[in-house]
Amino acid sequence: MSLDAILSRIDDQLPHAIDRLTGLLRIPSISTDPAYDDHCQRAADWLVSDLQSIGIDAKKRETPGQPMVVGQMDGPGPHLLFYGHYDVQPVDPLDLWNSDPFDPKLEDTPAGRVIRGRGSSDDKGQLMTFVEACRAYKDVNGTLPCKITFFFEGEEESGSPSLIPFMKDNAAELGADIALICDTSMVSPGVPSIASQLRGMLKDEFTLHGPTIDLHSGHYGGPALNPLREISRIISTFHDDTGRVAIDGFYEGVHEVPADLLRQWEGCGFDEETYLSSVGMTQPHGEQGYSTLVQQWARPTLEINGLWGGYQGAGTKTVIPAEAHCKITCRLVGDMDPDVLRERLRAHVEARLSPDARITWNNDLDGSAAAVMNTKRPEFELARQALSDEWEREAVLVGMGGSIPIAGFFKEILNLDSMLIGFAHDDDAIHSPNEKYNVESFHKGMRSWARILDRLSAG
Amino acid sequence: MSLDAILSRIDDQLPHAIDRLTGLLRIPSISTDPAYDDHCQRAADWLVSDLQSIGIDAKKRETPGQPMVVGQMDGPGPHLLFYGHYDVQPVDPLDLWNSDPFDPKLEDTPAGRVIRGRGSSDDKGQLMTFVEACRAYKDVNGTLPCKITFFFEGEEESGSPSLIPFMKDNAAELGADIALICDTSMVSPGVPSIASQLRGMLKDEFTLHGPTIDLHSGHYGGPALNPLREISRIISTFHDDTGRVAIDGFYEGVHEVPADLLRQWEGCGFDEETYLSSVGMTQPHGEQGYSTLVQQWARPTLEINGLWGGYQGAGTKTVIPAEAHCKITCRLVGDMDPDVLRERLRAHVEARLSPDARITWNNDLDGSAAAVMNTKRPEFELARQALSDEWEREAVLVGMGGSIPIAGFFKEILNLDSMLIGFAHDDDAIHSPNEKYNVESFHKGMRSWARILDRLSAG
Repeated sequence: MSLDAILSRIDDQLPHAIDRLTGLLRIPSISTDPAYDDHCQRAADWLVSDLQSIGIDAKKRETPGQPMVVGQMDGPGPHLLFYGHYDVQPVDPLDLWNSDPFDPKLEDTPAGRVIRGRGSSDDKGQLMTFVEACRAYKDVNGTLPCKITFFFEGEEESGSPSLIPFMKDNAAELGADIALICDTSMVSPGVPSIASQLRGMLKDEFTLHGPTIDLHSGHYGGPALNPLREISRIISTFHDDTGRVAIDGFYEGVHEVPADLLRQWEGCGFDEETYLSSVGMTQPHGEQGYSTLVQQWARPTLEINGLWGGYQGAGTKTVIPAEAHCKITCRLVGDMDPDVLRERLRAHVEARLSPDARITWNNDLDGSAAAVMNTKRPEFELARQALSDEWEREAVLVGMGGSIPIAGFFKEILNLDSMLIGFAHDDDAIHSPNEKYNVESFHKGMRSWARILDRLSAG
Repeated sequence: MSLDAILSRIDDQLPHAIDRLTGLLRIPSISTDPAYDDHCQRAADWLVSDLQSIGIDAKKRETPGQPMVVGQMDGPGPHLLFYGHYDVQPVDPLDLWNSDPFDPKLEDTPAGRVIRGRGSSDDKGQLMTFVEACRAYKDVNGTLPCKITFFFEGEEESGSPSLIPFMKDNAAELGADIALICDTSMVSPGVPSIASQLRGMLKDEFTLHGPTIDLHSGHYGGPALNPLREISRIISTFHDDTGRVAIDGFYEGVHEVPADLLRQWEGCGFDEETYLSSVGMTQPHGEQGYSTLVQQWARPTLEINGLWGGYQGAGTKTVIPAEAHCKITCRLVGDMDPDVLRERLRAHVEARLSPDARITWNNDLDGSAAAVMNTKRPEFELARQALSDEWEREAVLVGMGGSIPIAGFFKEILNLDSMLIGFAHDDDAIHSPNEKYNVESFHKGMRSWARILDRLSAG
């Protein structure tokens, strides 16, 4: 049967596809909080059952953490490994949501119809674009166009602790010709995008200890070291006045963007003004001397993601707290080494401590280097053509500000190149209140995958 | 009957007095959190009933906030107004308590027997020293030695919003010759102390707003303004490298301590090493060039009491939050004007904001100037003699780091001088987990008041 029949099937079945996605979105599969472990199990069961409904031999596979879902189906074309994750970010601050994050709703907005709910964009909606494309193929043709291994994890939002051991233990089963990943965004709405580079990430966290107990600011205000002042002072030394990270050796392994790539990026349709103004910014706040796009895709960052200590309730509590806490992530580029950088970050903090202050570090947090895709592979050109057909606009190779360590792991453990194609929008509010996924992203995402599978199967 | 009989009665009745205090401590009368309003009512009822059991005509008096308790009994001596507060601080962080804060226990410690529980020292234990002294007088003599008005409030820990209106409305009823206040500590264990000066307080709070929504640090890390970085940078400008507050005009109205007062303080028995080492400090961290005692009693401070934003849960959340929050209190001395200072603090913050950041201030928080007591009044010498008799050590006139605005209000509204005498220890952990009050403080505190009443009644 022709590709047209498959695309028509996708169009016809869209309401059912949305219903299925809604079912998955109702499951609060927050992996970072053990209180939600049962729901992660339920989400994995849901996916197993959904893949089985297409005729795919899928199973839930237990790990020490959240389970994996692995399924496989034969087909004539090359062997593809498709990866997605069914876990979602925590939903706090809950009071900033306009509706229940786990009671997804269709909403009409000035930018079109959206599916609202935690995970709608990251990554349940995105992974289902691929599953639904396969379902349409199966419905119309009775088979898939390629041999496909489906591989879903439930720990992407919590550092994927089980991923590497699982891949090592099941390397033969997970072997393929190339990996496909749908967990990225389009550079601008309507501009189909293939990721050519991703930033890495270093996670760290510390507690700053001062007085042995919480103190009364009348009895001890003045003579006592205040951990909140101390931690603020230390955090204020992380950047200089030009927005550059002021940690010794931080930029080792960072390379300037080559002039030809920079020219491509300038023509990629990125709308700087919309990108900034949509979140209330009138100017970029990163390193001076770099464009907004380069700051986002090709420059490293050090960001504070959580900071707290003392009294947070209503009114006043005249306390000098015993502790203050800080969560940090760094986005890495080029050849920056997360392990080396962790030591440098920690040395920077320790060297700046006042007497009577001490630090304890969270040693359970990981890091991953930046990744550059092998865009010379023929699959990239085939996917570019398929995407250009669907979106009626030239698809572009873009950088990505996010970190998707899975691409590095696929290369390292399975010797697999990855191709990352996603349909999210920058304003999807992933990791934030009121996350959404445009119905257009979902619909044309399914159609895009159908076209990509068609091209890949034809080789 | 002689004073000795009254002191003996106090000694004999100590276990019952502890039982009564324990009953009051079981009531979680946290005034700063509306969820505890009913318990504040219960605490007021408890006090009314306890005063009535001594034969005092006491009533609960409703206000727009927590109720007052007012009681009066005639006696031959001068008219005294005794003030205390039945409300207590919040108990968080609860996990740092070794026992239920509202299930008080007697404990034997290396420093003697203590009553453990929220409010044991601040201020339920202290106010009951006076009530129990009166009870002993009544039990032995059938009357009180002076005319006494009891005046207890339930909003001391939440800024006393109802206090001034209530005092204005009931000024005639609350008139007296002098006010007695039991809400302070001894300069060192076993050194009876009368406060000669108290620091004032300015409270303020702000929210720093950056992006319009929480952002993903992959999509926006770099170009977006991070409120946690911004708030840390601003807080780090509050002090210079010598510990001095760097806000323009902050020290206006601050006077150096006169040399003769400084000499008195040096001989007052303050044990700097114990004071610092008991909370894990090896050195004072306030303004360089001032002793620990002067930093605590006679220098102004700016302290951060609460600081928060972003993700505080387990693991990592790669968020750039939309907001960050900061709670501030300043301790004031001399002629510092809290209203002027609030404007200066706010101007300092606003002037240092980055583009795209803005501040909202909490305009519900108050301030109070520092207070200097009228120590030339004869009651101070009489109390000094009584305390010296009880503690077998010369009583001293000391400064205090805390802020007890009531003394200023008594002067302003009722034209009453105040005398502040308390028996708390610096290590009582008031406002902190595991608050305690030494049984010695409770016992000798009652005996001290009995001796003071005896001297005051004799004139």
